[in-house]
Amino acid sequence: MRKRKAAQRGGRELTRERILAVSGRVFNQRGYHGTTLDDIARALGVTKAALYYHVKNKEELLFQCHQLALDIGMEGFHRALAQPAPPDEQLRVALAHYIEGMADQLKGTVVLLEQGALTPRHHRRIVRSRDEYEQALRKMIAGGITAGVFVPCDPKLVGFAILGAVHWIPKWYHPAGSSPAREIAEAFAAYLVRGLTKQPSPDLPAPRRAAAAERTIPDDDSA
Amino acid sequence: MRKRKAAQRGGRELTRERILAVSGRVFNQRGYHGTTLDDIARALGVTKAALYYHVKNKEELLFQCHQLALDIGMEGFHRALAQPAPPDEQLRVALAHYIEGMADQLKGTVVLLEQGALTPRHHRRIVRSRDEYEQALRKMIAGGITAGVFVPCDPKLVGFAILGAVHWIPKWYHPAGSSPAREIAEAFAAYLVRGLTKQPSPDLPAPRRAAAAERTIPDDDSA
Repeated sequence: MRKRKAAQRGGRELTRERILAVSGRVFNQRGYHGTTLDDIARALGVTKAALYYHVKNKEELLFQCHQLALDIGMEGFHRALAQPAPPDEQLRVALAHYIEGMADQLKGTVVLLEQGALTPRHHRRIVRSRDEYEQALRKMIAGGITAGVFVPCDPKLVGFAILGAVHWIPKWYHPAGSSPAREIAEAFAAYLVRGLTKQPSPDLPAPRRAAAAERTIPDDDSA
Repeated sequence: MRKRKAAQRGGRELTRERILAVSGRVFNQRGYHGTTLDDIARALGVTKAALYYHVKNKEELLFQCHQLALDIGMEGFHRALAQPAPPDEQLRVALAHYIEGMADQLKGTVVLLEQGALTPRHHRRIVRSRDEYEQALRKMIAGGITAGVFVPCDPKLVGFAILGAVHWIPKWYHPAGSSPAREIAEAFAAYLVRGLTKQPSPDLPAPRRAAAAERTIPDDDSA
């Protein structure tokens, strides 16, 4: 996706960030297969020609959404590791960053479940990034066990449980729902880390809103 | 799906259970859209005509796989609630039953992620069953909070985290992998319940096999 600073429509710059956020939203509404580049251009308020300047085709958008999600995930680890904090706090920071970033920058993006639509080359790249992410997660869990902060367990299995909880969020999350991304990120990260921690905190983030996480069923509507 | 006791091929009865287990395995290998009824008949060692006696079309198999998964899930709750046990133990039993059953009876079945391929009528039925399952899960979490066994939290959000971890299993689980279904079920249930428990156990099921949960990547291969 090429960058063009001057690319503006309706006063809003057509950045990669905005294209992917809007693509995520439209994919969620219509499903990946039910979405055309026309739909995305319309939602962005630009012509399809303007969109083509930035992106080759729909599959490239899918790839970019996946890549952005994994970039956000790795960024979470880098941030966490840059802090002189114990492993439980680092893991909490890393997961919260990933969840909030995915929700904010990709609007949840059910589309992340649709790896099958990627070209083989893009698929390989995403699998490589995903493997890196998984390795970082397992390493952090293993480090916490070694440090005596986490209970002994299989970092691979617990890592899969954590990733499942996180990657399932797009199935029920809705940007317009009653739970802000940050609240979900904090609640998830605290719960997922607590299951590992030897001496866990006496509580979890309380439900600040009674209607927190109302299901707005993107998976049902987009079917 | 009609039953026919006499329907035997190669000495093995063509039961609903066997049809769904084999369908799950083939769907995992080829993806739902890449699978034909011919493929499933061949994997079952029967003619397509014999298969048609039991199932109308491929979509019905998808629906039955979903329904079976949710039936197993509800069965887990019924079993758990029939035991005079504290809420943490009940939740552990319910989740372990669901996970092990899904893995054993549906071979993981990535296909459960493909709700979008269901007909509207089947989709409504699955959403209704899924809502029942989610309600039962939240009720059990809320009951544990009331009983003072679980830390205060938002049962809806934590419920989504648990369901995500569980429903993601088909993305990495492989029946021929090195972790038996029961081991995964126990590890997951213990970890997921531990995050909620006020006074959690000092450990989690230890990795009994170093190579536990080797990724055999059904999602990558079936793409």
